[in-house]
Amino acid sequence: MTRILMLLLLFTATLRAADESSAQAAIREVMAQQQADWNSGNIDAFMQGYLRSEEIRFASGGTVTKGWAATIERYHTHYDTRAKMGQLQFDLLSIEVFSADSAVVFGRWELTRAPDEIKPNGLFTLVFRHTSDGWRIVHDHTSSADP
Amino acid sequence: MTRILMLLLLFTATLRAADESSAQAAIREVMAQQQADWNSGNIDAFMQGYLRSEEIRFASGGTVTKGWAATIERYHTHYDTRAKMGQLQFDLLSIEVFSADSAVVFGRWELTRAPDEIKPNGLFTLVFRHTSDGWRIVHDHTSSADP
Repeated sequence: MTRILMLLLLFTATLRAADESSAQAAIREVMAQQQADWNSGNIDAFMQGYLRSEEIRFASGGTVTKGWAATIERYHTHYDTRAKMGQLQFDLLSIEVFSADSAVVFGRWELTRAPDEIKPNGLFTLVFRHTSDGWRIVHDHTSSADP
Repeated sequence: MTRILMLLLLFTATLRAADESSAQAAIREVMAQQQADWNSGNIDAFMQGYLRSEEIRFASGGTVTKGWAATIERYHTHYDTRAKMGQLQFDLLSIEVFSADSAVVFGRWELTRAPDEIKPNGLFTLVFRHTSDGWRIVHDHTSSADP
C-alpha cells in the first residue's frame, strides 16, 4: 500500500501544479472577457462569466441576489443606460486555486463615467467552479467604497 | 495503472466526505467562539479566529487591510468602547469545503446596540485554511447594508 500511496501523492502533486496555472490562465480569460463585454455595453455577454444556474449568488452591501435570472435582472436594472455602465476596469489582486474545480479570485473594480467626480470603485471576492462550460463564477461578493 | 487509479479515486472520495463534515463542524466552532468572544468584549480573543499571519486580508467597502497586526488594530480603532461592539450575531448561510485545507463561508452579521434605530448589518465571505492551529480565517470580505 505504501507504494500506491506514494504514487498517489506524486500523481496528485504533479496534476495540481499543472492544474493551478492553467486554471489561473482560464480564469484571467473569463475576467478579461467580462471586462470587454461590459465595456462594449453588453450585459448579457458579461453574464456568461457566471454559471447559468439558479444556485449562483450575488452579494452586495447587505443584499443577496440568488440565481442567474435575478442577477442578470439586477444588472439590467442598476445599469439601464450605456452611460451608467461606463468603462469597467478589473484589477485582479489574487487568484487562489483550491482544487481541480474551485478557486477564489479577489480584486478591485472601478468604473469611469463622464459625470462622476470620484470614480465608483470597490472590491470583489469571487468563487469560481470548473464546470462543463469551463471556469464560471458561482458566488460574487462585491462591495463599494464610500463615495 | 487502472486499478491504482480506481483505488486512488475511491480513497479520495471517502476521505473527502469525512473531511467535509468534520471541517464544517470545526469551522462552525471557530465562528461560534468568535461570536462569544466578541460578545464578552474581547477583541483579542475574537482575533484568534484569524490566522496569525501577515498574509491575512481584511476587505471592507473599498479598503484592504493586510496582515494580522493591521487587522487587530482596525478592530480596536473601530470598536474602541464596549458599547460600540454591542452584541454580534452571525448567521452562517453556507460553508463550502473545497479541499482538505480550504473552505469558503458566507453569512450575515448583525450588531445589536442600544442607541441604534436600525441594527448595523451586512454580509461576509470568509476563506478558511486548515493550518497547524486548526481552521483559521485567511481572507475576510465584509460588506455593510446601507443604513
